[in-house]
Amino acid sequence: MTVTAPAGFEAAGVAAGLKSTGKSDVAVVVNRGPLKVGAAVFTSNRAKANPILWSEQVITDGIVEAVVLNSGGANCFTGSFGFQTTHQTAEKAAELLGVAPGDILVCSTGLIGTGDETFRAKVLEGVEAGVAALSADGGLDAAHAIMTTDSVAKTSVYAGDGWTIGGIAKGAGMLAPGLATMLVVITTDAVLTASDADAHLRAATHVSFDRLDSDGCMSTNDQVSLLVSGASGVEPDAAAFRAGLVALCDDLARQLQGDAEGASHDITIRVVHAASEEDAVEVGRSIARNNLFKAAIFGNDPNWGRVLAAIGTTQAAFDPYDVDVWMNGVRVCSAGGPDAPREQVDLTPRATHLVVDLKVGDVEATIRTNDLTHDYVHENSAYSS
Amino acid sequence: MTVTAPAGFEAAGVAAGLKSTGKSDVAVVVNRGPLKVGAAVFTSNRAKANPILWSEQVITDGIVEAVVLNSGGANCFTGSFGFQTTHQTAEKAAELLGVAPGDILVCSTGLIGTGDETFRAKVLEGVEAGVAALSADGGLDAAHAIMTTDSVAKTSVYAGDGWTIGGIAKGAGMLAPGLATMLVVITTDAVLTASDADAHLRAATHVSFDRLDSDGCMSTNDQVSLLVSGASGVEPDAAAFRAGLVALCDDLARQLQGDAEGASHDITIRVVHAASEEDAVEVGRSIARNNLFKAAIFGNDPNWGRVLAAIGTTQAAFDPYDVDVWMNGVRVCSAGGPDAPREQVDLTPRATHLVVDLKVGDVEATIRTNDLTHDYVHENSAYSS
Repeated sequence: MTVTAPAGFEAAGVAAGLKSTGKSDVAVVVNRGPLKVGAAVFTSNRAKANPILWSEQVITDGIVEAVVLNSGGANCFTGSFGFQTTHQTAEKAAELLGVAPGDILVCSTGLIGTGDETFRAKVLEGVEAGVAALSADGGLDAAHAIMTTDSVAKTSVYAGDGWTIGGIAKGAGMLAPGLATMLVVITTDAVLTASDADAHLRAATHVSFDRLDSDGCMSTNDQVSLLVSGASGVEPDAAAFRAGLVALCDDLARQLQGDAEGASHDITIRVVHAASEEDAVEVGRSIARNNLFKAAIFGNDPNWGRVLAAIGTTQAAFDPYDVDVWMNGVRVCSAGGPDAPREQVDLTPRATHLVVDLKVGDVEATIRTNDLTHDYVHENSAYSS
Repeated sequence: MTVTAPAGFEAAGVAAGLKSTGKSDVAVVVNRGPLKVGAAVFTSNRAKANPILWSEQVITDGIVEAVVLNSGGANCFTGSFGFQTTHQTAEKAAELLGVAPGDILVCSTGLIGTGDETFRAKVLEGVEAGVAALSADGGLDAAHAIMTTDSVAKTSVYAGDGWTIGGIAKGAGMLAPGLATMLVVITTDAVLTASDADAHLRAATHVSFDRLDSDGCMSTNDQVSLLVSGASGVEPDAAAFRAGLVALCDDLARQLQGDAEGASHDITIRVVHAASEEDAVEVGRSIARNNLFKAAIFGNDPNWGRVLAAIGTTQAAFDPYDVDVWMNGVRVCSAGGPDAPREQVDLTPRATHLVVDLKVGDVEATIRTNDLTHDYVHENSAYSS
């Protein structure tokens, strides 16, 4: 039920010694065709890891043969040596697969600044072992090999009308901006052109991964790739394919949110009656990034004042004194003043629903985030990543 | 050594029952003249508390007789009833002092949404008791009465050439944007016009309180007031007065940083060789607001990769692959790659010094922040504020 669910793909995940735990750390996903179409979106951070710099070039012609991914080292800020490592990774995979190096996407995740000779040697060994282990049901192995602080592998499948989409993901965060390195590989056996694949992928990530804002920090290594084999022989209805891809991305985004580092609440922030999508997203993001609000939710405190203080920092069109706020179904603030007593709000469930009604238009958007917890501080202070 | 250090001022701090602890919670600072000049700067949050809405009107004519401050309730998002409470607070003080209500600044801090009839009654009682308790050495009492989660009162005095500046502060944060309600009252017996006072205050807060960014959250109630009595009879040299005011504001800002909620490190982020002041501040702020970096510092982890990932999100002019990063005197990153081993960095002292060299210009700026700690999460999740 992963990237090997659609026809035309093989995958593998192997242990190359990059993780000190000895767990698998190199994944390979190969497109056996007949089409070799690819699309990808990358972190918008100007500080880009070497695999991002490489993959941005690979994707320009819309042809992708395979994706090689490693955990255990981000290969970011490792200079020209690090870029050569990425280049050699692609060359090694290309040689073993009998394809061109310029059609191999590379993704890395782990500690920034990690990418020395030992790292290079292990990655190259991992590519060799990974290609040797490729199989038509290796998708779950690949999903495991890209995990870092993830507690579970993230996978998803969407069954269309004669075509299938499959995906694996790791990390917790959003893409543009993005964080904590989110790596996603999506495959499909639908028949798509490169430009269609690119358009569908951008549209789907825009409303899914881009709206997952666990802690507001943007990664140097985020990458979402879509590989198209066309092996089903079916040209999908464009709207149906887009809807399927959105559903799959949204499912993976929810899994990332549900496994975010140290979180105890999955917070869905729905901003309604905004004047524009930009306004709704800006308002939602301002709440998602407010540490005081996020700490309050951790403490099961329905502190709507912190919501209003957060959105007051935005440029979005609304009257701060005519906003309604709902928490888990209770309207705690109406027209910018107290409404139902905060005691009526039960914040003990992990799923937390916040609705902010701006009362100025008819557009809405949903941003997903997590609370700010002791475990978040612990995970991000006790371990380098 | 507070607001009553300069000649011409009286102050008081009294307990009016707003704090459940029974500690003092209403402060009054009165300018006895001969000048009654005032200036003030306010939160840039669009969600403004009632005392901000009131005080913004009071300050327009540059005349201030007194400041009334309360803790134990922010009187924000409390509707027209709350605005009337602020109005009545000013009227009560004006009546007791024999001055015009329109010359009374009002400040509040505490939980947003708090401002009911009980709150109003207690504040008005507090004003009465406060005015009755006014004395020429009541500044420290006033400093105590505005404390909320502060562990110590913040006070400062600057002695000029024949004139003096005094100040009290509470909270932890910055003004524009600002957070966790920072209230500051500054007094001086220098002879200044209203427009000079305004210009000096804006210039001083711009490089002090505005660059203190403890947790990136902006308050609805931040206010910094400057009261000018002229009682020294001395017209100060403009540059000397500005330098003194900057020094006093910087001293108070450091005290706020040193007492920030739950912090274990005071982080000074110096951005050097920037192309512009805006760039330097944007880069510094991006680091100050990066939870992953702040958690790493809490864990004494010199994680320079998180610094580069943070600044890569800015629009500032620099080459991400040609930046140097110094932590506590050790250059851990040069030209966008690893330099000295991270083991050489000692992050155990509370004072943490980060230098980021952008290598493009000759401008620098300093931003102050704190680490992200378990105690921060605890304080902001266990108690409503």
